[in-house]
Amino acid sequence: MDPAQLLSDLTAGHTAALARAISVVENARPGFEQLLAGIHPRLGRARRIGITGPPGAGKSTLTERLVTAWRTRGLRVAVVAVDPTSPFTGGALLGDRIRMESIALDSGVFIRSMATRGSLGGLATTTREVCDVLDAAAFDRIIVETVGVGQSELDVGRTADSTVLVLVPESGDGIQTLKSGIMEIADVFVVNKADRSGAEKLRQEIEVTLGIRQGNAFRNVRAHHGFRGKVPRAAPDPTGQPAAWAQPVVLTVAAKGEGIDELVTALDAHYDSLESSGGLVERRRRRFLERTREVVERAARRWVWNETGAQRHITERLDDIVAGRVSPYEVAVEVLEELKQGERV
Amino acid sequence: MDPAQLLSDLTAGHTAALARAISVVENARPGFEQLLAGIHPRLGRARRIGITGPPGAGKSTLTERLVTAWRTRGLRVAVVAVDPTSPFTGGALLGDRIRMESIALDSGVFIRSMATRGSLGGLATTTREVCDVLDAAAFDRIIVETVGVGQSELDVGRTADSTVLVLVPESGDGIQTLKSGIMEIADVFVVNKADRSGAEKLRQEIEVTLGIRQGNAFRNVRAHHGFRGKVPRAAPDPTGQPAAWAQPVVLTVAAKGEGIDELVTALDAHYDSLESSGGLVERRRRRFLERTREVVERAARRWVWNETGAQRHITERLDDIVAGRVSPYEVAVEVLEELKQGERV
Repeated sequence: MDPAQLLSDLTAGHTAALARAISVVENARPGFEQLLAGIHPRLGRARRIGITGPPGAGKSTLTERLVTAWRTRGLRVAVVAVDPTSPFTGGALLGDRIRMESIALDSGVFIRSMATRGSLGGLATTTREVCDVLDAAAFDRIIVETVGVGQSELDVGRTADSTVLVLVPESGDGIQTLKSGIMEIADVFVVNKADRSGAEKLRQEIEVTLGIRQGNAFRNVRAHHGFRGKVPRAAPDPTGQPAAWAQPVVLTVAAKGEGIDELVTALDAHYDSLESSGGLVERRRRRFLERTREVVERAARRWVWNETGAQRHITERLDDIVAGRVSPYEVAVEVLEELKQGERV
Repeated sequence: MDPAQLLSDLTAGHTAALARAISVVENARPGFEQLLAGIHPRLGRARRIGITGPPGAGKSTLTERLVTAWRTRGLRVAVVAVDPTSPFTGGALLGDRIRMESIALDSGVFIRSMATRGSLGGLATTTREVCDVLDAAAFDRIIVETVGVGQSELDVGRTADSTVLVLVPESGDGIQTLKSGIMEIADVFVVNKADRSGAEKLRQEIEVTLGIRQGNAFRNVRAHHGFRGKVPRAAPDPTGQPAAWAQPVVLTVAAKGEGIDELVTALDAHYDSLESSGGLVERRRRRFLERTREVVERAARRWVWNETGAQRHITERLDDIVAGRVSPYEVAVEVLEELKQGERV
């Protein structure tokens, strides 16, 4: 693979080059880092939107509707679906794919499911790198959809420009039990399946919780229906939300297409708010810092295992470890000493 | 903390020392690796049993019954519950804790929930280290219970002496959709809630699937009720199962205590089989190799970020990265060059 040629084809809009570039990045084929290095100066065009929430909240249907809404506005949209939960529910993903068929034949839409192979940590980095490829391929919006499995939500929140947390009325009883960190990462809340009873109650619960957590009591007093993205907050938010941004709660019935325009408006408002407050620059700066740390760790890991005597060292010491004569911790100290002294294979 | 003193108190059976040692390891407090190094020669007494399966399969109830069964046999039992799935279902864990109360006051039982803080990868290593502490504290059985979230099942399988996969009749339709790698890690299958319709059908499905995957067709012909751990397999198993071990399917109704004795028998039979076939030595050897790799990677990470110029280097280069003048990949190459040349802060 010639990274320069692939990059050139990619930015020229060749569909085959896009699929090829993603495959190269996903599988960490030789040259993938040169490709990503070449992409780097072109980043920042696309808006990245994370969509997360518990299983069954209707994230895929909502994603499909969002895609359609953006397409009618003339935007090119990519979807990356990350589903690390499915060892026991392999069927669900297939269901999503079938539903997504309504948009899958549109050449302005690109859909990719990310398989879980290595660790979740590796998956998160690879997902971000695939988003870079899509950014360079001139998509206007990149949706990263993750199923509710804990750490991955938090990772999305640290990665996207805007994060949407999708809940359903059934979640109502549990709003107080959402782990800390989950409500904070959401820039926009969606109460989907809002034609079911309890939707308005859930919205109010979210708003009360947000109000309490953010010390913005007056918000609860002026609770009203509809989009409320412009309500100013009293206190600046330590989680990196721009001070002027009050996380809105949008009611949707994705299956019927209701509330989608409001969600699009809320996302636009959030992006505008990020841009005008300097939050966008800050988020992307933090994202680059984290990415660099990840890339350094990956490169260091590769170096340690492939280019130094570390692997040979622990293999040679394994009998002693198994026999209890030395511990993995002492062997690690030995290996580190070798690394520090610059000894090589 | 004096690691030697803590180790001495721990092995002397002081309850307070156990809690303290686990806390030291969980939080990676100074000296935690010396403590674990001191523990290392004492490992191998406890049998480690992984229990995994989808949410709602009744794993906690089954765990509680297993604990009780082992207690009546005079064994000391520890339970480590790993639940990285709960940002949206914080309530479930509380439910489990309440149910576990029947065993929580028994001094021969120790129960610990592991919180998800860092990455799942870090959690897996820490969980194994907590198991080491429990092993050194002379527990006879250590149960590691994980909720169904993909990679963590596979990690349990690589860590435990015996892995139990718990399914319920409702999973029946989905048995063919279980991701590859999931059925292979199970040493013992449990069909829990077996008083519901479909239990026998699920058992047969599991057995057919195992037979197909392992080329052991005659197994399906002689399907019968009850424990079948002694059925010999035709082909040796590339996944590390001893050739003589046919993964049994045990029907249980954990809520009523039914089938628990059969499960205990199956686990004993699996352990005996592992011991006599040499599989136990092999599993533990592989476990030590992986642990050593993990500990080396953790130590290398700590070294890179805390003892070299890497952090300063990427901080200094961040403006250039943000401006697109250099990519994270090129900066990583720079950092690695410094590491290789042995340049220090």
